[in-house]
Amino acid sequence: MSKLSDDLYSALSAIPLIDPHSHIEPLSPVSRTLDDILGYHYYTELAHSAGMSQAPLAKDVLPRERVRAIVGHMDRYDNTAQYAWFLDIAKNFLGFTGNRITAADADTLFDTAEKTFAQKDWEEQVFKKSNLEAIFLTNEFDDPLEGFDTKRYIPCLRTDALVFGTEDAAIIGRLAKATGVEARDPASWKKAIRALFEKFTAKGAKACAISLPPNFIPSKESSPVFWMLAEHCQEFKLPFDLMIGVNRKVYRNGVYQGQDLFDQRTSLIQYQELFNAFPDVKFPVSVLTSVQNQELVSYSWIFPNVYPNGHWWYSNIPAYITNDLRGRLQAVPKTKLVGYYSDAYKLEFVLPKFSMYRRVLAELLASEFVEVKRLTETEAIALGKRLLRDNVREIFNV
Amino acid sequence: MSKLSDDLYSALSAIPLIDPHSHIEPLSPVSRTLDDILGYHYYTELAHSAGMSQAPLAKDVLPRERVRAIVGHMDRYDNTAQYAWFLDIAKNFLGFTGNRITAADADTLFDTAEKTFAQKDWEEQVFKKSNLEAIFLTNEFDDPLEGFDTKRYIPCLRTDALVFGTEDAAIIGRLAKATGVEARDPASWKKAIRALFEKFTAKGAKACAISLPPNFIPSKESSPVFWMLAEHCQEFKLPFDLMIGVNRKVYRNGVYQGQDLFDQRTSLIQYQELFNAFPDVKFPVSVLTSVQNQELVSYSWIFPNVYPNGHWWYSNIPAYITNDLRGRLQAVPKTKLVGYYSDAYKLEFVLPKFSMYRRVLAELLASEFVEVKRLTETEAIALGKRLLRDNVREIFNV
Amino acid sequence: MSKLSDDLYSALSAIPLIDPHSHIEPLSPVSRTLDDILGYHYYTELAHSAGMSQAPLAKDVLPRERVRAIVGHMDRYDNTAQYAWFLDIAKNFLGFTGNRITAADADTLFDTAEKTFAQKDWEEQVFKKSNLEAIFLTNEFDDPLEGFDTKRYIPCLRTDALVFGTEDAAIIGRLAKATGVEARDPASWKKAIRALFEKFTAKGAKACAISLPPNFIPSKESSPVFWMLAEHCQEFKLPFDLMIGVNRKVYRNGVYQGQDLFDQRTSLIQYQELFNAFPDVKFPVSVLTSVQNQELVSYSWIFPNVYPNGHWWYSNIPAYITNDLRGRLQAVPKTKLVGYYSDAYKLEFVLPKFSMYRRVLAELLASEFVEVKRLTETEAIALGKRLLRDNVREIFNV
Repeated sequence: MSKLSDDLYSALSAIPLIDPHSHIEPLSPVSRTLDDILGYHYYTELAHSAGMSQAPLAKDVLPRERVRAIVGHMDRYDNTAQYAWFLDIAKNFLGFTGNRITAADADTLFDTAEKTFAQKDWEEQVFKKSNLEAIFLTNEFDDPLEGFDTKRYIPCLRTDALVFGTEDAAIIGRLAKATGVEARDPASWKKAIRALFEKFTAKGAKACAISLPPNFIPSKESSPVFWMLAEHCQEFKLPFDLMIGVNRKVYRNGVYQGQDLFDQRTSLIQYQELFNAFPDVKFPVSVLTSVQNQELVSYSWIFPNVYPNGHWWYSNIPAYITNDLRGRLQAVPKTKLVGYYSDAYKLEFVLPKFSMYRRVLAELLASEFVEVKRLTETEAIALGKRLLRDNVREIFNV
Repeated sequence: MSKLSDDLYSALSAIPLIDPHSHIEPLSPVSRTLDDILGYHYYTELAHSAGMSQAPLAKDVLPRERVRAIVGHMDRYDNTAQYAWFLDIAKNFLGFTGNRITAADADTLFDTAEKTFAQKDWEEQVFKKSNLEAIFLTNEFDDPLEGFDTKRYIPCLRTDALVFGTEDAAIIGRLAKATGVEARDPASWKKAIRALFEKFTAKGAKACAISLPPNFIPSKESSPVFWMLAEHCQEFKLPFDLMIGVNRKVYRNGVYQGQDLFDQRTSLIQYQELFNAFPDVKFPVSVLTSVQNQELVSYSWIFPNVYPNGHWWYSNIPAYITNDLRGRLQAVPKTKLVGYYSDAYKLEFVLPKFSMYRRVLAELLASEFVEVKRLTETEAIALGKRLLRDNVREIFNV
Repeated sequence: MSKLSDDLYSALSAIPLIDPHSHIEPLSPVSRTLDDILGYHYYTELAHSAGMSQAPLAKDVLPRERVRAIVGHMDRYDNTAQYAWFLDIAKNFLGFTGNRITAADADTLFDTAEKTFAQKDWEEQVFKKSNLEAIFLTNEFDDPLEGFDTKRYIPCLRTDALVFGTEDAAIIGRLAKATGVEARDPASWKKAIRALFEKFTAKGAKACAISLPPNFIPSKESSPVFWMLAEHCQEFKLPFDLMIGVNRKVYRNGVYQGQDLFDQRTSLIQYQELFNAFPDVKFPVSVLTSVQNQELVSYSWIFPNVYPNGHWWYSNIPAYITNDLRGRLQAVPKTKLVGYYSDAYKLEFVLPKFSMYRRVLAELLASEFVEVKRLTETEAIALGKRLLRDNVREIFNV
């Protein structure tokens, strides 16, 4: 870590964040116990992969016991980036001063967390410590979108259930309840979708989003509902976040949310008709694998409406972020780069995840731009600000 | 940038270049206006991708206006490698002394370019400043190949039109005109192709070349003309450049030459019969994606007749060159590595593109060979010279 | 190379090795002439790829002549990692003191090798100089497994012939001879396989292994014998090494063992049923390409029974090891990482190959853990020891 990259890192950390993708529940955005932190699938799946049985994950297990089990296995996965996030959380939010978290720390951390998280202004404290200004949600289509400040918690219409639930009576029922429309044929589907877009945009929604399997064909013929969503994104001027590449339930006995994997043989070529058909819809695209990053770079370089979006899931570790971001910085117009999103379920994760990203970004700004005299330090910080903030505002119209 | 890699870079820059692939027109090899530089598709497509409409690209727009539009959008893509080439051109050829090119520089640069490029000996000046000795062309089969020095502008038979135009009356007509042979059946096709090879080799051609889509099957059955070309490469001892992986017209409303993309799911396994059938034909192979580079490394490691050739198009940025070249340097015999080609449309691009490559090469020679004491500095420069010059001479028999 | 990574490298070199995969013949584990070293396919194929005819590889060519030919071509491939292994062998075992091996060294090296390798305790010397404690073999199913110390040379049941030879009378015959069972139907196959597992485990076998082509479907329906092997691995508690991705005989006129290549379009998704069906079988998985490494990282992160295993063949060069290992270290529990195996045919290769790996590992431990203050130097060495030794002992129950 050079002095230069340290300085850049500090400067980047001072930029207020708008986090363009998360799974925060706005009515309970912060953790109440350490179990809310460590129940995050990244920890349960790593502990399970490293040998923990699923017994501690049962509903009736006391939170403290579950935390003991997950922390108790950390000496088997304390090499990982995910462990580093937790260490960062412990240091930044729980006053932990050690260098390493072991089984012996479980109870103290649990108790400290309970006290800390119980503070009335905890949510405010987290926002402030994380330098967070606003964060996007991922709302089910029938989410009431009520009871929270939509300037701070920005709604986003999640559409997985609609696209993959066209034959599912429960989904159709929920849709009818939410919109007053029985979606039975193209016309009624269109009417229902229009109702959703009207409601969501009225509530300040700034994006529509979906996650898609590797073999998904986004054509009018094979998925009319998907196509209708794109048409409505066009009409309502909403960016359409595509998160491409996830196969669900690959490890069938995996922990909750720890069952999905991928097939690296995925291509954006399948999306060419979509990108051609909707030149006015902005498509911020996330790919699940670093292998596909060069496609994302090249498609964003050519298509005005394709935007590289963050570093998703299995690609969200420094090894892949570094390679992927370097390619994006060298070949995609800087105004199109949505740098990072936390994908967080609880607000406490925004800080450590963005810190990891800022560290990589600072090093690349140092080596690729400042050290080779392409940019001054001040200019490099401005480039970082583009990725962290300005582009989110411009692309999503925040 | 260490002192060592700086020194290596200087030494590499002193090696006279033979550029083994370009699209130079030998009768107008240099630019006349800045529009010839910025009309290069890399700039039009980046400006368009970053938000520029296609209006400034219309034929009837004045060159100065087009340049203003493209330079005017540079503050949206001045992070890219392509912008860095342009900055390099402005500094080396146009006396630009600033650190950054903005909209305000458009007119001055345009005027300076007009004056500079109008010098009678401009072509000679560019050759000299670029330390360029000779450069390969990419000639259509009916190119007259006349009016230029074929020692300096080395002909190369481009065969895309033949392989993909066997059902195209216009192509058949042009072929008849060029060779006097109506290509209607295998025998007459063979006769026509033989006539082309005779003409091209008589004119000093040193290679045959083609670019191929990801799903191309290079077999005798599915593409008899392609197979015949390989047979003639064998007979006439011409290397056959294969440029693998491009899908044409993916972005249908893209700018001229800015519509092509790829499917990362491409494999050299499709070429196994070809490589086996023609052990005496040298196949310098370019792949479009870094994803496929390990295949290229491994196939070159095993097949005596497969040669890794440069860093093509979407892989021609430092991020990918660095990874790809590192693999090649560690696993392919050094005598088989064709380091780089400019792919230039105008000679002014040879210098900045090769400089980018030499920078990467210098850093790898430093870190992989000199710093770990595998080579002395002098030996490392000799290795660099192999990639930049000696192998081109040996493999293409220049 | 920093002082820190040098220190880590020295510390890692002091850890006694258990090499979990090789092709050593326990009855002639060391080389007798330099021809045994340079006859290794890595050298014959590189020399051939670089222009050497196959004439020097004929059986009736004198070993000294063959060595002269292969060394004589080294100035065409002395840039490669494989050449560096040989230089390391010459320095460590043959007293070579130069910096570069050229044609002029062939005879001296040959003579020195003859004398050196003839020493009675040569095998012991190599074990000692290599800091090698034990090494896994790859035994054909009808190997008698006799005449050697199975604590030092650990048997491993190679099953390629069984899985791909179910229709091959010679294989069936050998199986009958080895087990006394005529394998004709599922029941008799099962009986024969059980006999093999009984014999191998009685002899101290610690793994079952197989190499598989990219399109292999490991299902009960398409390969009942493969499925039976997994069932027996479960019953006999043997890890099942899967080496995924090799296409045999791609270069049909290649040198012995220098004909195999791959199709980068390979996915672990094909293995999902297998991994789900046998949660109690440990699957140490090797992938042939770095392209597939992210799949291996992610599948190991999620599936408790999938373990990343070494750096195989075309991925066994520092460029790919570095990228692949960085991903594994950041995302897979450290207790699941089988760091490296030599894949050696002769014991003299264990040292240079492991040294190459230790160099990469030392640099990553320095940059990813110590320099960023995640681990102390002592802790980093312990992490290295996990990858080099502890995990082999735990996972394979050595």
